Amino acid sequence: MKEQVRDITSRDVDFATWYTDIVKKADLVDYSSVKGSMIIRPYGYAIWENIKSELDQEFKRLGHQNIQMPMFIPESLLNVEKEHVEGFAPEVAWVTHGGSEPLEERLCVRPTSEVLFCDHFKKIIKSYRDLPLLYNQWCTIVRWERTTRPFLRSREILWQEGHTMHATREEALEETKKMLKVYEDFQRNILALPVIVGKKTEKEKFAGAETTYTIEAMMYDGVALQNGTSHYFGQGFAKAFGIEYLNKENKLENPYQTSWGVTTRMIGAIIMTHSDDRGLVLPPRIAPIKVNLIPIGNDEAVLNKINEIKNNLDRENVTNTIDNSDKTPGFKFAESEVKGYPIRLELGRRDMEQGHVTLVRRDTLEKIEVPFGKITETIPSLLDQIQDNLYNRALERRNTMLYKANTYEEFKDIAQNKSGFIKINWCGDRACEDKIKDETGLKSRCILEEEQSNGNCIVCGKTGKHKIYFGRQY
Amino acid sequence: MKEQVRDITSRDVDFATWYTDIVKKADLVDYSSVKGSMIIRPYGYAIWENIKSELDQEFKRLGHQNIQMPMFIPESLLNVEKEHVEGFAPEVAWVTHGGSEPLEERLCVRPTSEVLFCDHFKKIIKSYRDLPLLYNQWCTIVRWERTTRPFLRSREILWQEGHTMHATREEALEETKKMLKVYEDFQRNILALPVIVGKKTEKEKFAGAETTYTIEAMMYDGVALQNGTSHYFGQGFAKAFGIEYLNKENKLENPYQTSWGVTTRMIGAIIMTHSDDRGLVLPPRIAPIKVNLIPIGNDEAVLNKINEIKNNLDRENVTNTIDNSDKTPGFKFAESEVKGYPIRLELGRRDMEQGHVTLVRRDTLEKIEVPFGKITETIPSLLDQIQDNLYNRALERRNTMLYKANTYEEFKDIAQNKSGFIKINWCGDRACEDKIKDETGLKSRCILEEEQSNGNCIVCGKTGKHKIYFGRQY
Repeated sequence: MKEQVRDITSRDVDFATWYTDIVKKADLVDYSSVKGSMIIRPYGYAIWENIKSELDQEFKRLGHQNIQMPMFIPESLLNVEKEHVEGFAPEVAWVTHGGSEPLEERLCVRPTSEVLFCDHFKKIIKSYRDLPLLYNQWCTIVRWERTTRPFLRSREILWQEGHTMHATREEALEETKKMLKVYEDFQRNILALPVIVGKKTEKEKFAGAETTYTIEAMMYDGVALQNGTSHYFGQGFAKAFGIEYLNKENKLENPYQTSWGVTTRMIGAIIMTHSDDRGLVLPPRIAPIKVNLIPIGNDEAVLNKINEIKNNLDRENVTNTIDNSDKTPGFKFAESEVKGYPIRLELGRRDMEQGHVTLVRRDTLEKIEVPFGKITETIPSLLDQIQDNLYNRALERRNTMLYKANTYEEFKDIAQNKSGFIKINWCGDRACEDKIKDETGLKSRCILEEEQSNGNCIVCGKTGKHKIYFGRQY
Repeated sequence: MKEQVRDITSRDVDFATWYTDIVKKADLVDYSSVKGSMIIRPYGYAIWENIKSELDQEFKRLGHQNIQMPMFIPESLLNVEKEHVEGFAPEVAWVTHGGSEPLEERLCVRPTSEVLFCDHFKKIIKSYRDLPLLYNQWCTIVRWERTTRPFLRSREILWQEGHTMHATREEALEETKKMLKVYEDFQRNILALPVIVGKKTEKEKFAGAETTYTIEAMMYDGVALQNGTSHYFGQGFAKAFGIEYLNKENKLENPYQTSWGVTTRMIGAIIMTHSDDRGLVLPPRIAPIKVNLIPIGNDEAVLNKINEIKNNLDRENVTNTIDNSDKTPGFKFAESEVKGYPIRLELGRRDMEQGHVTLVRRDTLEKIEVPFGKITETIPSLLDQIQDNLYNRALERRNTMLYKANTYEEFKDIAQNKSGFIKINWCGDRACEDKIKDETGLKSRCILEEEQSNGNCIVCGKTGKHKIYFGRQY
């Protein structure tokens, strides 16, 4: 296991290899015989279960109901909304045969489910009394990516997709922003990610949306990870699908629509924000196991005390595990670090005599001696401290990688020499956005809604319309 | 809504149409534009969420961990175990194109995941210390069925599949039976289904299994629904996939394997066992909403009291809903019956004056007046009574449809004139099993392990080897 730790590539030497080392060695993921698809192993899946449970509770509290749609979309149905099909058709998997027989019409495996929801909404929405309709689905989607990386970009993605219908534009816009806020709060408070929220440009918005809002996280290496989106569709899909309801004035009207989603990609963001060369680091609020209890030696008194501590932690709902294996203590400590358990609790014979345990924080590796009588009260507050420290540490690092460029020369200089996001004034024209992408490789991240342009577009010199971030992306 | 109730076909007139009326009118399911796939609507999905939550908790308590495998299986991987591929290849959906390009090797959408698990097990099982390995997966599978019916037989199926590996034959057999018992207890105690458990014949067992145990439920019309299976694989897959571990004597050995699964089909079983001509009837322990509160009239005192009752029920974790719509009371009562809420609570102005509410049991339609002060204590015990009554009612009905046949003539007579299961002595030969199927349409349900044959095979007259049930099936 010490060997295993040394096998982790240093993140400052080769970030990409470091990342794949972490996901493999912490037992989050394994590769499969299916190219581009990963196996999410129990420890990785337990993180996803925690994410699901937190978000699902919040969605339901806000009135959303879960539903299950088919996983296939007939080609003709995908073709109903023009922009949407153009956006997705190039990257779908096509089912052409059932058993030994060719299908009359081929089916794609859903890359997202707007058209399936619209097809259903058309049947069930009749009156303003049926609105708002607030649905969500937890499922797997497929996008035929060429290059894949565990959690970040894979052919199969576990996600949730919210789909809602509203009587007014205002209400739909409010829903779009409300769910963006749910994602933002969840990522800040539970995943300890200092995210930036904003609006996608016309070029980068979702195929078929009027407006796409986005959550942009910055990884340790300064590269962006789009970590959740919330879309306002207006009446576009409703008109394409002929969804109409009788309003209070007894007139037929098209409803206003939203959709929003987050994926297992968030697990990639946790890894690439918090982890280090010793292995995974998990924010305590999302960690499946918060305390790893390690008895040193086989002394019966030690084992009894460890069991007593375990029972106390169980009673306080602090998830924990005991490492009772016959490995050496050094091996167990290293394994505990690789797995990213927020706290390691060590107890040996000498500790017994002195009446204390040693707690080791995974985030700082600091060792803290805690008397037996104070363990149960110390651990929850230490977990909170770790959570806060991870957020603040990530925030500080991120802030050192936020740049401003007042001229295009300055922009190109930063783009070439630094990693991170660059904020500029932008005229809003696609031509300037494309030029930046073509000449520097940086794509627009998001338009900042709460900040106004205060100068001319750094590319063309015309009046600036927006403050916008650019950055490289995963 | 009264109209809607009258629209339900009588179950004694046309059971099949009655069934589809119920699933549609109770808002459990909607048909989709994808042939053979259903939409599980929020009310139906909430039942599945309850099923998942109950079973998942029990699986975890018994040491199982959840994992997520790819949804696709490359054709060459499906082909590794001969019996398995012969059993499944004729009914899988094939993905042949990714985007606009043909795939080098076609992929099937998983019809079950044994081969994916084995492929992974081969990599992660090395020593006896890695055993037992107790995994479970919640996912969607696809089987290209020709005729489909909501919940009972559809192209997409939501299910869980347990996959475990053990060091000894005994331990694997114990796991197979342990999980069968989990299913049996769950179906009896939570779904109120009086199930029969036993062993499948060689003909009917799972493709690739040494032994398949089954849960057989009998529907209201006497037809069987196979409602869960647990398989013992021996070392068959392990040998085919080259899975080996070092045992305690430091010798390489193949581990012993099990798999077990239940599906959304159980929702079909609930419907076809308990429901009636007025609509759905749900056992309280699985019902998403246990009490439907109906205020009669707009009297403020009534509405306040209803809210007070709601708060008390919330505090006791009794799920409930208030029907505040402007529909007539008669309409609301009918809707409550269609939806199968176990208890309807009615409160009008006259009830207010008399200081009581009226509770209406969905199972018996009995009305019970309960003084305000006794509501919170009465409801939980009434829910238990309803649960018990549903089980006992189903058990009694089922018992009237269990037959014994001592001769083949007798068997054919019952098969032609009655609905239900017929118990016989059987020699164990496939030829006799086939003859029964060909001549009467009845298939073997299960071999009874706790009952011995006490006579000769009713078909061929040779010594009986097993007591076995035959019956028609969904």
